[in-house]
Amino acid sequence: MTPSPQSFDSAPTVSERPSVVFGLDQPLVTDGGGSIAPLTIGFETYGALNSARSNAILLCHALTGDQYAASVHPVTGKPGWWDVLVGPGLPFDTDRFFVICSNVVGGCMGTTGPASINSATGRAYGLDFPVVTIRDMVRAQAMLIDRLGIDMLFCVAGGSMGGMQVLQWAASYPERVFAAMPIATAARHSSQNIAFHEVGRQAVMADPDWRGGRYLDEGVRPEKGLAVARMSAHITYLSEQALQRKFGRKLQARAAPTFSFDADFQIESYLRHQGLAFVERFDANSYLFVTRACDYFDLAADYGGSLARAFTGAKTRFCVISFTSDWLYPTSASRAIVHALNAGGASVSFVEIASDKGHDAFLLYEPDFFATTRGFLESAARARGIAPVTARRS
Amino acid sequence: MTPSPQSFDSAPTVSERPSVVFGLDQPLVTDGGGSIAPLTIGFETYGALNSARSNAILLCHALTGDQYAASVHPVTGKPGWWDVLVGPGLPFDTDRFFVICSNVVGGCMGTTGPASINSATGRAYGLDFPVVTIRDMVRAQAMLIDRLGIDMLFCVAGGSMGGMQVLQWAASYPERVFAAMPIATAARHSSQNIAFHEVGRQAVMADPDWRGGRYLDEGVRPEKGLAVARMSAHITYLSEQALQRKFGRKLQARAAPTFSFDADFQIESYLRHQGLAFVERFDANSYLFVTRACDYFDLAADYGGSLARAFTGAKTRFCVISFTSDWLYPTSASRAIVHALNAGGASVSFVEIASDKGHDAFLLYEPDFFATTRGFLESAARARGIAPVTARRS
Repeated sequence: MTPSPQSFDSAPTVSERPSVVFGLDQPLVTDGGGSIAPLTIGFETYGALNSARSNAILLCHALTGDQYAASVHPVTGKPGWWDVLVGPGLPFDTDRFFVICSNVVGGCMGTTGPASINSATGRAYGLDFPVVTIRDMVRAQAMLIDRLGIDMLFCVAGGSMGGMQVLQWAASYPERVFAAMPIATAARHSSQNIAFHEVGRQAVMADPDWRGGRYLDEGVRPEKGLAVARMSAHITYLSEQALQRKFGRKLQARAAPTFSFDADFQIESYLRHQGLAFVERFDANSYLFVTRACDYFDLAADYGGSLARAFTGAKTRFCVISFTSDWLYPTSASRAIVHALNAGGASVSFVEIASDKGHDAFLLYEPDFFATTRGFLESAARARGIAPVTARRS
Repeated sequence: MTPSPQSFDSAPTVSERPSVVFGLDQPLVTDGGGSIAPLTIGFETYGALNSARSNAILLCHALTGDQYAASVHPVTGKPGWWDVLVGPGLPFDTDRFFVICSNVVGGCMGTTGPASINSATGRAYGLDFPVVTIRDMVRAQAMLIDRLGIDMLFCVAGGSMGGMQVLQWAASYPERVFAAMPIATAARHSSQNIAFHEVGRQAVMADPDWRGGRYLDEGVRPEKGLAVARMSAHITYLSEQALQRKFGRKLQARAAPTFSFDADFQIESYLRHQGLAFVERFDANSYLFVTRACDYFDLAADYGGSLARAFTGAKTRFCVISFTSDWLYPTSASRAIVHALNAGGASVSFVEIASDKGHDAFLLYEPDFFATTRGFLESAARARGIAPVTARRS
């Protein structure tokens, strides 16, 4: 059943967020040989699908992101994570494009994940949830896109783990992706990336309230371990320069050091806050699964070790973007993607944005990033024959 | 009482390692206003003090190092942490120099620290131990050097937190330091440095077996938390390139990923091993205290915000060394030291060693580092009038 183009154009309230359900007869079979059924996919949409069904953009969220790219987050009450880029008149112009963003499989914001009820047991999956891959996440998204009646996406875009999904989309479904924007990402997780993720997982698993992953059954949550994991990861999202500029060695609401283990420094207070805020909105087991999916990501490995082969003959237009101070997914990782795309004969533009904001730059307002995104999408939209906006809605 | 020059020339067995004790009448008064008495300082020496007492070198160890710079570690059975640099015929030539290395105050290898018995209570100090600073560590070392009857050290050398102690020595006791080698270090801890330390502390404190710091009284140890802290820190000691070269995405004793949370990747197995090995030899509260000492280090702050003023008129000869791939204490931090030394009118040479081994390069055999150290010490020894070695001992 194909919904009408208008059916996702209204902003639902929290309790009636859109989702689709795939039944026991439509399992998601995972790379690891697991099977997820039923599968619910929570998603948000912005703008309207045009009658040619040619203007759909899929946004892929990062590790701890969700479908609330441009809507107020139902748990935190904060603006969407790409609020600066998605909306009327913005680069992802919702007056022109139909923007879709779904929560990844394994997540915890409406899509089936380890905190969901396993229909086979009547209890939360916990570690019985299959270890999923980036390709599994993309398979689930393709099921959603099918359900929405969209054959070809105008664009797939995302940063960090979202960028991995973009690359996987272009490799798995080249005929369904007109344009692709992998941002601040890599075609494979590096040893250092895996190392930081492993520290986070060990922090969660070291918390006795993790209970071997069965904490939901036992009415507890490994909040301390998850907070430590988040604190550790958070450092990697920022550049040394950004930390120095923002916090330096400034003291937190005191004139002199206390010679104690209190949060004397603002950076300590900030990190502790990041940890505490995170556990309010994220499931610890989901954190294990999404970090693991990244670790397993090595697109070339699926193509005989050749990343170029993943993109051979691709007609997709690519715009690869990196940020100078991103040391988690450095420009060298983006260059490797660009080289492979060139070797595969793909159409690719590559922009390294000067920014001192580190990996998180892709979530922030950076004028050059903004302009690059707008320019790429406008050019691609012309090529795709998507009508420009003639008059703004009030 | 001054010991004879020969009295520290023999290698004692583990049970009779040298130490000095300062009684209740000689407290170490700390920057934070605390007082440590009695104070035991565990130390090792190599080589012999000459009759002019002019050939003593003090080595300052890094965060989790100890006095076993060139002796087999009594707990791990491993070679000393600077075994490559310290010994007969090596740059720190024990045929020529009298090399001293002591465990820092707050440590856990023979010098008084939080695991020591507090004479006021008869229990382990725990968090009742005063929060110490780098300057407190150096004060304790100066007490040891006094006790050894040495007025002026020929050289003070060390990397990382050891380098901070070197800078503090040169600032606090300029007339007692003929030559100084601050290596892979900084004159102040950056926001990012503090952030990584805070994650480690939070990991320790999140472990319920930490028991508010009173774990020794209760017969437990926060091993899981301390292991996570070590894993997190260990990543920062290595460069991304070194990790990629050494581990890459290689799997650990398996042909294919298991789609699980086992240590599929060699880097995961390696990190877990690092965490487990560390808790065998290190006290969790000591980890809190030594990381805190680094965080509080900001040498310029003690001199009205001017690092140059810390070194004004210094007659000490400096050799500042950094490593290209060290992102924890990057070359820019060493350059800041060099600029201050130049501004203060000090004699300084600066060498940035090309290495892809990250921060840990200062603990490894790097030919250029080796040659730089040898050259600097030989030149300084000539200037100090320390006789060359005429014949090697068998």
